[in-house]
Amino acid sequence: MKHYLPDPDQIPGEAQPQELPPWGETRVVGRSLSRVDGYELVSGTAVYTLDLTLPDMLHAVIVRCPHAHARVVRVETSRAEAMPGVRAVLTASTPGAEIPWYFGDDGPTSRLFDSHCRYAGEEVAAVAAETVHQAWDAARAIEVEYEVLPFVIDEAEALEADAPAVHEGGNLTEQREFARGDVEAAFAEADVVLGGTFRTPCELHAPLETFVSVARWDGDRLTVWDSTQGVFARQQELARYFRLPLTSVRVICPYVGGGFGAKLSTGKYTVIAALAARMTARPVKLAVTREDSFLSEGNRPANTIRLKAAAMRDGTLTALEGEFLGSVGAYPSGAVSPYLLLALYDCANARAATTEVYTNAGRARAFRAPAFPPCAWALEQTIDALAEEIGMDPVEFRLKNLATVLQLRDDLPYTSIGLRECIIEGAREFGWESARSRPQQDGHLRRGVGMAAGMWAYPGEPRATVFVKLFADGSVNLNMGASDIGTGTKTVMAMVVAEELGVPLEQIQIEHADTGTTQYAPASGGSQTVVVSSPAVRAAAVDVKGQLLEIAAAELERPAEGLVLRDGQVVPIDDEGAAVPLAELRGLRQRQNIVGVGRRHPHPEGKIALPFCAQFADVEVNTLTGEVRVARLLAAHDSGRVMSYLTYENQVFGGMAMGIGFGLTEDRVLDSQTGKMVNHNWHDYKIPTAKDVPLEQTCVPIDPHDTECNTTGAKGLGEPAHIPTAAAIANAVYHATGVRVHDAPITAMQMVRLLAETRGD
Amino acid sequence: MKHYLPDPDQIPGEAQPQELPPWGETRVVGRSLSRVDGYELVSGTAVYTLDLTLPDMLHAVIVRCPHAHARVVRVETSRAEAMPGVRAVLTASTPGAEIPWYFGDDGPTSRLFDSHCRYAGEEVAAVAAETVHQAWDAARAIEVEYEVLPFVIDEAEALEADAPAVHEGGNLTEQREFARGDVEAAFAEADVVLGGTFRTPCELHAPLETFVSVARWDGDRLTVWDSTQGVFARQQELARYFRLPLTSVRVICPYVGGGFGAKLSTGKYTVIAALAARMTARPVKLAVTREDSFLSEGNRPANTIRLKAAAMRDGTLTALEGEFLGSVGAYPSGAVSPYLLLALYDCANARAATTEVYTNAGRARAFRAPAFPPCAWALEQTIDALAEEIGMDPVEFRLKNLATVLQLRDDLPYTSIGLRECIIEGAREFGWESARSRPQQDGHLRRGVGMAAGMWAYPGEPRATVFVKLFADGSVNLNMGASDIGTGTKTVMAMVVAEELGVPLEQIQIEHADTGTTQYAPASGGSQTVVVSSPAVRAAAVDVKGQLLEIAAAELERPAEGLVLRDGQVVPIDDEGAAVPLAELRGLRQRQNIVGVGRRHPHPEGKIALPFCAQFADVEVNTLTGEVRVARLLAAHDSGRVMSYLTYENQVFGGMAMGIGFGLTEDRVLDSQTGKMVNHNWHDYKIPTAKDVPLEQTCVPIDPHDTECNTTGAKGLGEPAHIPTAAAIANAVYHATGVRVHDAPITAMQMVRLLAETRGD
Repeated sequence: MKHYLPDPDQIPGEAQPQELPPWGETRVVGRSLSRVDGYELVSGTAVYTLDLTLPDMLHAVIVRCPHAHARVVRVETSRAEAMPGVRAVLTASTPGAEIPWYFGDDGPTSRLFDSHCRYAGEEVAAVAAETVHQAWDAARAIEVEYEVLPFVIDEAEALEADAPAVHEGGNLTEQREFARGDVEAAFAEADVVLGGTFRTPCELHAPLETFVSVARWDGDRLTVWDSTQGVFARQQELARYFRLPLTSVRVICPYVGGGFGAKLSTGKYTVIAALAARMTARPVKLAVTREDSFLSEGNRPANTIRLKAAAMRDGTLTALEGEFLGSVGAYPSGAVSPYLLLALYDCANARAATTEVYTNAGRARAFRAPAFPPCAWALEQTIDALAEEIGMDPVEFRLKNLATVLQLRDDLPYTSIGLRECIIEGAREFGWESARSRPQQDGHLRRGVGMAAGMWAYPGEPRATVFVKLFADGSVNLNMGASDIGTGTKTVMAMVVAEELGVPLEQIQIEHADTGTTQYAPASGGSQTVVVSSPAVRAAAVDVKGQLLEIAAAELERPAEGLVLRDGQVVPIDDEGAAVPLAELRGLRQRQNIVGVGRRHPHPEGKIALPFCAQFADVEVNTLTGEVRVARLLAAHDSGRVMSYLTYENQVFGGMAMGIGFGLTEDRVLDSQTGKMVNHNWHDYKIPTAKDVPLEQTCVPIDPHDTECNTTGAKGLGEPAHIPTAAAIANAVYHATGVRVHDAPITAMQMVRLLAETRGD
Repeated sequence: MKHYLPDPDQIPGEAQPQELPPWGETRVVGRSLSRVDGYELVSGTAVYTLDLTLPDMLHAVIVRCPHAHARVVRVETSRAEAMPGVRAVLTASTPGAEIPWYFGDDGPTSRLFDSHCRYAGEEVAAVAAETVHQAWDAARAIEVEYEVLPFVIDEAEALEADAPAVHEGGNLTEQREFARGDVEAAFAEADVVLGGTFRTPCELHAPLETFVSVARWDGDRLTVWDSTQGVFARQQELARYFRLPLTSVRVICPYVGGGFGAKLSTGKYTVIAALAARMTARPVKLAVTREDSFLSEGNRPANTIRLKAAAMRDGTLTALEGEFLGSVGAYPSGAVSPYLLLALYDCANARAATTEVYTNAGRARAFRAPAFPPCAWALEQTIDALAEEIGMDPVEFRLKNLATVLQLRDDLPYTSIGLRECIIEGAREFGWESARSRPQQDGHLRRGVGMAAGMWAYPGEPRATVFVKLFADGSVNLNMGASDIGTGTKTVMAMVVAEELGVPLEQIQIEHADTGTTQYAPASGGSQTVVVSSPAVRAAAVDVKGQLLEIAAAELERPAEGLVLRDGQVVPIDDEGAAVPLAELRGLRQRQNIVGVGRRHPHPEGKIALPFCAQFADVEVNTLTGEVRVARLLAAHDSGRVMSYLTYENQVFGGMAMGIGFGLTEDRVLDSQTGKMVNHNWHDYKIPTAKDVPLEQTCVPIDPHDTECNTTGAKGLGEPAHIPTAAAIANAVYHATGVRVHDAPITAMQMVRLLAETRGD
């Protein structure tokens, strides 16, 4: 997993980002405004890739290996090829399928249809036909003969000497160690030492829009409409696969129904669609079904974390040690990370060891704050236990041990750190003290509260270029490369433009996420979209504003400094009656449009900007049934400036809902007898529904007024909103019941068992 | 007709164009390279608007008035509405059809379906249906009751007091006068005075792709795919009609099969398609048939030009006088212009009067050098006659009287004037002297040569903004607003990028002509596309180059001045072996892409840049049949730098082919009894075919190495190529036969009659 790195050396030739003063009072930014595409979203006119239809488009489906581990002996396609509507059958011998499939720059490679199938769900063949039904019929008519191999699905077993080898080089992917201070000495000298082994479940991405691509060739040029988090990453990967110049691959991302990390890297379905389109000279759509996407399109792998922590009676945290074990599945990815353990609290002595292994399971992919929620699950429960052991309130214990610099990176200072305020303000709003002091009991119902803190470190891809174009009538076009994966990116960016140019949101049209027509922006993931793109948007709008005010100053015969832009008008500050609509500026009409360019490289020199958070949970445990009901949640986040209040709240509530799933209900189950997933559908894989989410959720934004992080003051929110939720719930369950749950999810069955053990049944 | 005006006052806030030195020796620019879209064009994969199919798209057709002048009394649509597949029937009472239809900012307005039909072909109603056949069937089922009115189709008759009034205000559109010097005195003092009345035909635009739009609404936003010369003009007109912000109207221009001026202004078909799409909530395509487009989508109106000229025996041209009469058809447009008369030759005393009238005929539209070919027809024949009268060779006479400043605009000097070289070099290459000295006769076949000169003054719309984006692998994206209407704009612009960045043409991808994703550029018309956009493209490429060379200089540890870009590499001038592919520059990969911005306002201060030309014709007249065969044509053009030799030649040969049509075959015929066009099809309206165009055509580019006109040195070629051709043919016919043909086209029938008159039959 790639993490935040300070800016590489200034690259020659690169313009410096505009020096802009921080905003004072804002008129638009921070408000609760409806989404700019709200009408399209709720009326159903928004076209997602899944909705896209091109003339003469074919539909493709994938034949998948049903075995956890197997070799393909023979693929017989003749019957499928003869079926009605079938236009192409693709197998390992299809020209173009022989190209190595890379996972990053090193590590094992695979093939589009690899004869060595390493998990149940791996791609073996594909069919493109006139209708999706014909394609499925033909897919079923493809006969595949397999040699079934022994498999391993447990990460600990995978390390055993006689375990079946997922890859020739063995199952060990990567081992890393991190250390600072003298951990042994600290443990020896500590007043209190605690430890335990925690386990978190394998969690599946479940974006409402599944995984889908539409591919079309024009001569040697490939256009792909893709439900993706990053068009530029997809462009690079497709250009690499098909050995094309980057500009010969155009990737367009229409509306996206969620990604959560799984739509960052390229799926084989996209390349299969492109290959089928090339074979047939027809556009091809390939939409992965929900069931297949659960098998094949990513997960947050299960983590086993052995944690040990030490403190002094005065509440000083003195040592932290963690051993992390996780499986990336069948192909290289990232499974575990000790980042949170090593960075969240001020702790001079810390050590971590990580082990990642291959197993015969679907490949892991980035998933909302990848390994942070598992780490928070272990760390924040351990911190709670330490606090209890020394008889200190968990809030007080945390406040005593907050980090003020990034110990992981040479004690780099933060541009701002609002974690203290998150905890204090959050606790006050939550009514922590009174709720904590008296856990409630009502017959078999026990009620308790808990909290957890968190932070997030985004990967560093700091560059973005944005254009803002003002038309002669005062309407605006915003051109940016970032995808809006459903989080409201378009709304936030339009609000930035509206803030600077004083034009109504309805008059801002957005072109985005198209490698052919927009400029580079990092993929929308890692909570960095607003962080990277909003300063670029602001800079572009300020560029337009400067040009516009020069025109206005000349025509109004007033100095530009005495003019502001508001409600589509140029308004003299000292004579509002002399305001002039933009559409009436002669110079603007003559120029036809004003184009502004904004660029962004966000790293403040010698400092680091990261978001922090604290969340509070109020739960009710039914000691008869073991059911845990989340009654209240509160999130206090320092994600810098609140750019758009509604989307901010959406992110926070969405992150916490996902945290409920992580803590209470979600768990991919592989059958130990067959290695196959037994719950690859929404009936058996339980994501939280509206009934599982508390009615009472509170969002407490903490704005540290960070003027150093970047020129909009935003620090990123998507991942932090999800990091501490499950841990806070587990701490509340402990508060309610005295039961410390080490293994997520806290299912009713587990709860009943643990309650019985606690009672000594 | 709008003509070249010096730049308006510098607009505040507008960046100055980059100061770039002129190119020295070029590596790419000027060469004969295949079109960048050649494969798509010849393979048929290029998608024109006419080819476009959207999911659920409806097809619309227009019901047109069959009478030259009528009032609509009643429109009965019930039968049509009930027909299969019909989804909408549009009439004057359809909401949205009541909006005034403007022709420029003043002058009479009309309606989408006006109850007062002013020409045979005017729009009365429309139908949108599932298939185009269903739409035609339903259109035929619409019953329209007309009150037929008296009509006028002759421009002279239209001025008579009792002529039927096309508009309430009468038929006179505009009268203008121009004068300099003392024309009366000059005529009185001249050695020779000559005169005559010339007439040129009404010529119809015949682009291979007819007139077609596809419209789709997304909520309140309109997207139109349009076969148009200018997406930004179309956007403005549609936004005005539908009262939308400009950014709510996106106009996209795919491949275009020609325009010739007729696709500059918005046709009612486009708005009808948009209105039908709004009514049905479906995409709607409306493709005007060839027959209907001849009726309704523009023409170059017939001109009647009374010309008088005077000279001294020494060859000095002393006076010019012209009276111009033309009809704009039923709605405001431009019909005549004395520009060429007043500007081509140095003549101290000149006077012109123009009269434009309404008639009951289809509306005129801009048509390749609008009124210049008619003026050249009259002027260049008169100059020939003057030269003969004083016993001077026409080449010598013209050389003696060349203008060196623009007399029409305060004697503004030209940045360059290559007309003298055009005439001298053209004459030499053509073998003028020997051919001119002995007209050949072979029985009834007479052979002769003639020449004519020309110049062109483009309308001033000087602004364009262009982006060039270099990707990490060295491939390039060029983003520009100009349409490529078939003339090779994309190829020329890509060559400019290749020149500066040293990347192969195949690695340059072009996004163009899309108001949503490209920046303002003037419409592709008036020979200004290359003039305005190529300097902006160059500036954008140079911007990229500067940034790229800074990266390369740092990585190669050499000064940027010692590096050149060639073949996708950075090459140290003094150590070519140390060349590095762009794809290997670390800084480029880090930056992901380099974006360059280029802007252009082309007018050099206090000077004017215009193109000039001379063409030479060698014809054979069959004195028995009257047929004129063009045996040879030569064009010598000063259009500044040759940007792309193949497209240059294409333009020249295309312009001359069109000149053959103008001079010999094309003529819209309105029936005097009914006012209806009798030849609105390609069988009866004769455009030249391959057999009418001489095998021997020569293109002689004259490059004056103009470093002042703009930073690429190009001056525009599309219109000049068409201006003198017909006049040169007419002069050659005179040389061959002694018959001076005043009325174009020189049909066989007219020729036979004039030959008989000359013989005194």
